[in-house]
Amino acid sequence: MSTPSLLILPGDGIGPEVMAEVRKIIDWYGAKRDLPFVVSEDLVGGAAYDTHGTPLHDDTMAKAQEVDAVLLGAVGGPKYDDLDFSVKPERGLLRLRKEMDLFANLRPAQCFDALADFSSLKKDVVAGLDIMIVRELTSGIYFGEPRGIFEEGNERVGINTQRYTESEIDRVARSAFELARKRGNKVCSMEKANVMESGVLWREVVQKVHDEDYPDVELSHMYADAGAMQLCRWPKQFDVIVTDNLFGDLLSDAAAMLTGSLGMLPSASLGAPMANGRPKALYEPVHGSAPDIAGQGKANPIACVLSFAMALRYSFDQGYEAQRLEKAVEQVLADGKRTADLLGEDGVQPVSTSEMGDAIVAAL
Amino acid sequence: MSTPSLLILPGDGIGPEVMAEVRKIIDWYGAKRDLPFVVSEDLVGGAAYDTHGTPLHDDTMAKAQEVDAVLLGAVGGPKYDDLDFSVKPERGLLRLRKEMDLFANLRPAQCFDALADFSSLKKDVVAGLDIMIVRELTSGIYFGEPRGIFEEGNERVGINTQRYTESEIDRVARSAFELARKRGNKVCSMEKANVMESGVLWREVVQKVHDEDYPDVELSHMYADAGAMQLCRWPKQFDVIVTDNLFGDLLSDAAAMLTGSLGMLPSASLGAPMANGRPKALYEPVHGSAPDIAGQGKANPIACVLSFAMALRYSFDQGYEAQRLEKAVEQVLADGKRTADLLGEDGVQPVSTSEMGDAIVAAL
Ligand SMILES: CC(C)[C@H](C(=O)O)[C@@H](O)C(=O)O
Ligand SMILES: CC(C)[C@H](C(=O)O)[C@@H](O)C(=O)O
Repeated sequence: MSTPSLLILPGDGIGPEVMAEVRKIIDWYGAKRDLPFVVSEDLVGGAAYDTHGTPLHDDTMAKAQEVDAVLLGAVGGPKYDDLDFSVKPERGLLRLRKEMDLFANLRPAQCFDALADFSSLKKDVVAGLDIMIVRELTSGIYFGEPRGIFEEGNERVGINTQRYTESEIDRVARSAFELARKRGNKVCSMEKANVMESGVLWREVVQKVHDEDYPDVELSHMYADAGAMQLCRWPKQFDVIVTDNLFGDLLSDAAAMLTGSLGMLPSASLGAPMANGRPKALYEPVHGSAPDIAGQGKANPIACVLSFAMALRYSFDQGYEAQRLEKAVEQVLADGKRTADLLGEDGVQPVSTSEMGDAIVAAL
Repeated sequence: MSTPSLLILPGDGIGPEVMAEVRKIIDWYGAKRDLPFVVSEDLVGGAAYDTHGTPLHDDTMAKAQEVDAVLLGAVGGPKYDDLDFSVKPERGLLRLRKEMDLFANLRPAQCFDALADFSSLKKDVVAGLDIMIVRELTSGIYFGEPRGIFEEGNERVGINTQRYTESEIDRVARSAFELARKRGNKVCSMEKANVMESGVLWREVVQKVHDEDYPDVELSHMYADAGAMQLCRWPKQFDVIVTDNLFGDLLSDAAAMLTGSLGMLPSASLGAPMANGRPKALYEPVHGSAPDIAGQGKANPIACVLSFAMALRYSFDQGYEAQRLEKAVEQVLADGKRTADLLGEDGVQPVSTSEMGDAIVAAL
């Protein structure tokens, strides 16, 4: 195979800062592990809007379709709050997800031992927590038509459409069952089948995929409101959770916060295999662009670094190297290195974004 | 005014058991505080389906429209899981909400001092917590058309429609601002305006209602995923939260669980004033029908009792008597009385559902 290619889209806010640290890691793999990457960089989100008047230029979209994997920092910020809906920074990210057809969004919610005290939850509720949320990412109410704000009588009405086809549900269910087989072999599917017909279809298709092709995996169904409750009560009951785009947005954010490791959590968005067998893929941290601390060297680069570890695992079949990187991060944390977001009240001095990146490289 | 009327709909699962305790309280108010009620009782949910083949008979619907307030226990259970969508127990409840036009669902998330240890969250995160979630209850994706499962090409597609008019947003926003003025004077509105046009309209209308008629109330906006996170991180930052039907479903359940007081939390669903000045109103516990413990005398009646307290306050202008009832509940808890759901590991013997009801009457 030719040298694998990466497109880096740092985006807005703390995106560029954390991505600079990931580049150190990428360079290290090229120099020390004979794993070189052809890296290009481009604009997305508010940064793209500032230059091109659009949150994702067509040329960037075309590049994203060609590379082996995209790494994205974060998009958005108050500067862009009043922009028209069609050019908001988020639309750049949503266009990437949609046009690359990245239907399976993998969001591990993991509690790092060294950070269990950070959670607002009691230590025994979160210590050792390791769940994987598989969120459908290219359909549902994020993309369904009709949508918009319309005149109706003498007032306006805001409309969005939740829409799932059987095949859309089928493929993301398969991703979840496949992942479960490599983990705890348990899937919980969440919807509101008691209220929404799209949820009725969701439940039926997930059950069918299970019965036909994954009878060995333990499957349960839960209403999404009960799911939100159970995540808050006893998250360790879950292994893999599969859910739709909108529920996945809320539930994965809640789960991420529960771990106390928000600045640490990566994500992978995967599509169908390309000609070379690698899946279409985009990797990004779960956290946002954090405009309040942007440019101050305070951001935690670990979520973005671990997103690259996911790329090593899911795009480049380098599970061993992915683990090496994950272990290096754990090592640095065990050594007591903390960015400002990870400080408790014990008087430790924070390290800067770039010091954290350097420490990870050193630990590698 | 004539004697106020109550329609009691115990419903399914633990509904009848907990409602039996509420009737003791209602009787006490008639006998001891000269506050008599004309009480009638009827079926809803699976219980109605079993008798009438529909989860809400038209006669029951008509009665609900006539009384001063409806008290509901809970609906649903595994027995009804395979029923057709149109006759599921939940449809009975949804029909009541829709036809009575109960647009403002008030869900206090409160942490009872005696129970702070019960939360999966750390004590300092939840002790003293007292927030009010105002959920829009008659519109949004719960009721929008088109909806259903349709053939499309050679597969099926599940469709639901999120739909909000300006006036629907306007009226629930007013409810939230009015409530905030009687509490901490702070409202946080939650939507996904970065992704959904219905959220863009939501944010705009809430802001307009604020600027025109409630400039004295502090207003903020948050994306619903960030809202889910912040509820898990530091819920005390909130006073009143106003949000749509679906987000409200998930967020209020998560918030309820966080307090550790799930079996304790009431709700009120309010509509427009009737001819006698009282609002259309339905009161129900936040918890579900808990079929696993139904009929065993294990259920906690407090959420249902406190729902009646909300009825005293919001339907019958008896704020003082509502407080008396709330104090009685606190007293019983402070005395160490616990139903089975509230037991920690300290070896206290649980009291039964009816012992709890009796204890509350005694404390009154
Ligand atoms: C930035 C935003 C469009 C996005 C979403 O809603 O999907 C984010 O919240 C996420 O979860 O990746
Ligand atoms: C029972 C169900 C229809 C209902 C809802 O989804 O609104 C419940 O979850 C609630 O929150 O009252």
